[in-house]
Amino acid sequence: MERIVVLAGGIGGARFLRGLKSAAPDADITVIGNTGDDIHLFGLKVCPDLDTVMYTLGGGINEEQGWGRAEETFAVKEELAAYGVGPGWFGLGDRDFATHIVRTQMMSAGYPLSAVTEALCSRWQPGVTLLPMTDDRVETHVLIDTADLDEAPGDGGESRKAIHFQEYWVRLRAKVDAHAVVPVGAESAKPGPGVLDAIAQADVILFPPSNPVVSVGTILAVPGIREAIAEAGVPVVGLSPIVGDAPVHGMADKVLAAVGVEATAAAVAQHYGSGLLDGWLVDTVDAGSTQAVEDAGIRCRAVPLMMTDTEATAAMAREALALAAEVGA
Amino acid sequence: MERIVVLAGGIGGARFLRGLKSAAPDADITVIGNTGDDIHLFGLKVCPDLDTVMYTLGGGINEEQGWGRAEETFAVKEELAAYGVGPGWFGLGDRDFATHIVRTQMMSAGYPLSAVTEALCSRWQPGVTLLPMTDDRVETHVLIDTADLDEAPGDGGESRKAIHFQEYWVRLRAKVDAHAVVPVGAESAKPGPGVLDAIAQADVILFPPSNPVVSVGTILAVPGIREAIAEAGVPVVGLSPIVGDAPVHGMADKVLAAVGVEATAAAVAQHYGSGLLDGWLVDTVDAGSTQAVEDAGIRCRAVPLMMTDTEATAAMAREALALAAEVGA
Repeated sequence: MERIVVLAGGIGGARFLRGLKSAAPDADITVIGNTGDDIHLFGLKVCPDLDTVMYTLGGGINEEQGWGRAEETFAVKEELAAYGVGPGWFGLGDRDFATHIVRTQMMSAGYPLSAVTEALCSRWQPGVTLLPMTDDRVETHVLIDTADLDEAPGDGGESRKAIHFQEYWVRLRAKVDAHAVVPVGAESAKPGPGVLDAIAQADVILFPPSNPVVSVGTILAVPGIREAIAEAGVPVVGLSPIVGDAPVHGMADKVLAAVGVEATAAAVAQHYGSGLLDGWLVDTVDAGSTQAVEDAGIRCRAVPLMMTDTEATAAMAREALALAAEVGA
Repeated sequence: MERIVVLAGGIGGARFLRGLKSAAPDADITVIGNTGDDIHLFGLKVCPDLDTVMYTLGGGINEEQGWGRAEETFAVKEELAAYGVGPGWFGLGDRDFATHIVRTQMMSAGYPLSAVTEALCSRWQPGVTLLPMTDDRVETHVLIDTADLDEAPGDGGESRKAIHFQEYWVRLRAKVDAHAVVPVGAESAKPGPGVLDAIAQADVILFPPSNPVVSVGTILAVPGIREAIAEAGVPVVGLSPIVGDAPVHGMADKVLAAVGVEATAAAVAQHYGSGLLDGWLVDTVDAGSTQAVEDAGIRCRAVPLMMTDTEATAAMAREALALAAEVGA
């Protein structure tokens, strides 16, 4: 049985995983999930990326928006607003609240996030082993201009301010410039239980078309994970989240700019680098960039990369596994 | 302006207060609320009696059941059940959850229950000052036979067990014998901010037809409150929660038995005693018991005591205030 390790963020990672499960139904899939976009809201621990993977693979996702629960209602949120308690910009539904209530209660009782995630998955049965990248607290912050917040400069006259990634992404919709993306706490975080073992035992490691900075990049920022992948001695293949110079989902271009990377399929591959990546898939519209990627020492193929449905996504996963077989041969 | 202090439990106290506000619209009413039935559920702090008062006077109550929110939905509870997280016997609705989320978040941030209650009331505008009896943790426990729980005796062969009042009241519906009612923590609790001042400044103190053991009795169990009432030097008038030898609401007879008090209007007055009570209202069907109450040194009148609507309840409140004026003359 093939052992596949996937580093996943939210929507892009979750949808890719659904295709991968369809393409490789007998594979033993371990997902290392990003927790850098976790946030405490209303006193509750919210793990957007882990939940998106869990709900998507467990059949509970809101298919249209790609996150949150299907058939969702918003009574709790409306009531919180009636109490004047925010933030109102984060769309937590009633069903979703239950997940965060269970998680918070278990964590208050002393369970680490990894154990809580396993418990939540025992309901959702995602068909993969979902491991948080770390049990430690890591919070992705984005450095922006205070002027863009309509805020006066700080007491010391600071003109820039670090805000939580969710505030940047959801509240500001990434419409303002990001000057830096900092996974606060990552430098002292330890890989979660099972993470390094899964990497060491993998036959293939995949980077789905997740955000290379705030999803895959944050996972790689946990000391030990990048090194373990580089030293695993197995094919590492990624799929470009950028198609035709624009992100397929989300607003990856904004955070790529913050780390000085062009929003192109080739630039993202070069950003990961040949020390990490063995193979890279770009979309057919970006076929012209395969040579640049190959020149960087990364095997590259141009194939359709739009996850329009599970079958199209499964085809992408098959291409990724084929490329892995090729680079591993 | 008349200053009225009311010791209140849940449904009975809340409904009486609505009548009192109607009967004395210009009065300055302070409610000392029972917190002995507070419970932690799903990691959240739930205050059933305080909330029942707040929702009832603020127009948010489910009128039929007397507790919980109007137009309530139960998505969160259903989801918690899907996670296998209980208890399922406590009916927390989605709107209600928001109250507990706000309360828990504020308390985690260090605010005492009194400050949190004030904040919640700034939304509900109950038209009274609602003070928790204490900011300390008090939890009413009920001693029952383990056999009634379908449980084996404890390791030490114990045949009795103390359970939380809510488990006794809501899950078991008070259908099994209560051997004792213990307000755990009361002996070391301090009256909440403003409680003793309100009593000292009161012109009248009223005991609504709330449960004399687990509502009013628990408030009186906080050291200093009973003494302050007895020494306030103002009329203290109560209304019987027992009409025709049965509780009007709830199952007060079960917990009265636990403290060795008959479930009659006269016995409850004698239980409070003339050291505390100056006047007592019994229902007209219990007119025959007024003499026994008077013999115990408590002025007693028989008047209609069924809170069928606000007008009937307002009439009860007027009778209580009239009796207070009479005993205070």
